[in-house]
Amino acid sequence: MELYDYLDSGNGYKVRLLLAQLGVPYRLHLVDIMAGATRTPEFLAINPNGRIPVLVLDDGTALAESNAILCYLAEGTALWPADRIGRARVLQWLFFEQYSHEPYVATPRFILRHLPADSPRRAELPARLAQGRAAFAVMERQLAQTAFLAGNSYSIADIALYGYSHVAHEGGHDLSAFPAVGTWLARVAGQPGHVRMLPADALSMPRN
Amino acid sequence: MELYDYLDSGNGYKVRLLLAQLGVPYRLHLVDIMAGATRTPEFLAINPNGRIPVLVLDDGTALAESNAILCYLAEGTALWPADRIGRARVLQWLFFEQYSHEPYVATPRFILRHLPADSPRRAELPARLAQGRAAFAVMERQLAQTAFLAGNSYSIADIALYGYSHVAHEGGHDLSAFPAVGTWLARVAGQPGHVRMLPADALSMPRN
Repeated sequence: MELYDYLDSGNGYKVRLLLAQLGVPYRLHLVDIMAGATRTPEFLAINPNGRIPVLVLDDGTALAESNAILCYLAEGTALWPADRIGRARVLQWLFFEQYSHEPYVATPRFILRHLPADSPRRAELPARLAQGRAAFAVMERQLAQTAFLAGNSYSIADIALYGYSHVAHEGGHDLSAFPAVGTWLARVAGQPGHVRMLPADALSMPRN
Repeated sequence: MELYDYLDSGNGYKVRLLLAQLGVPYRLHLVDIMAGATRTPEFLAINPNGRIPVLVLDDGTALAESNAILCYLAEGTALWPADRIGRARVLQWLFFEQYSHEPYVATPRFILRHLPADSPRRAELPARLAQGRAAFAVMERQLAQTAFLAGNSYSIADIALYGYSHVAHEGGHDLSAFPAVGTWLARVAGQPGHVRMLPADALSMPRN
């Protein structure tokens, strides 16, 4: 398999983390999203939506959308429930992540790490952070009851939400009001085969 | 089953359309989202994220997130592919819908239909409509090649994208530049058991 990815993307990291935990070998192609490399005709041929990550299977099939890739890879493993309601629960969290969490946790981080300090987009931060706190409150409520998001087993729901939650502070979030989320972050990081998002010296981009 | 829903919601309509096409009986509970009915303790007990639709199964299990509900209901039917790559394709479109389409097609419609004419949120419209056109361009590219989004079979990917696409004009979108999308909208509306989003006289809300 070939993975088109950008190392500082939490969406890409979700896929890299799952591939590592499943022990699936793959070739990594780094795509410089900040230099427009996802808008070239070559890239749009594999994902017309112009976003990473994209997983290209051995038969040439290209799959986009990080959470769809997680579902594809996790089928038949312990990270994807065998029962119908269990699968629905995992999917509920995956859609929550993309709609109610990512725009309010990942985007503030993107604005602070990848845009200039005088970017007008900084004006979006207060509203986005407020929505992000609402998302963390929803997670806190669940994680005060169960060890993992979709119940008491680690699943791709945890991988999907861990992706940007564990670097939420880089977007201006303070998770100290969400202790169960903090405990869960450590629990996810302690799972067998866990890998970090970035190699220690992976990126030489401006930090906020 | 019991469905908590708001009739003018495309997210709710997706579920009602699938339930109708599958011939599954259910009891409908209308929730007045504009009056704060999704923020009451009673509602938050069934969906801590405070959003409709929510499907409550006969055993009391509450499922949130419209697209997760579609997956749950479609399992074992012709609307959910039997092959792994087919399922991944459907999921890819479902996540595309929530991340790249809904905020730019549903939200402009919400602003125009449900907020006052002098709402400051009208300032969001140009940027949201531009992103929405980008989403329709992605759909156009696919629908110029295949009859339905995930291939040549009708699936829940079509139901999910039809939900807000068919009322995109109510949010200020002009789909005339996307002829394959227009043909697909008619194709979806012609599927057996199709039902409309709103009864003719369902709502007496202000129209734009």
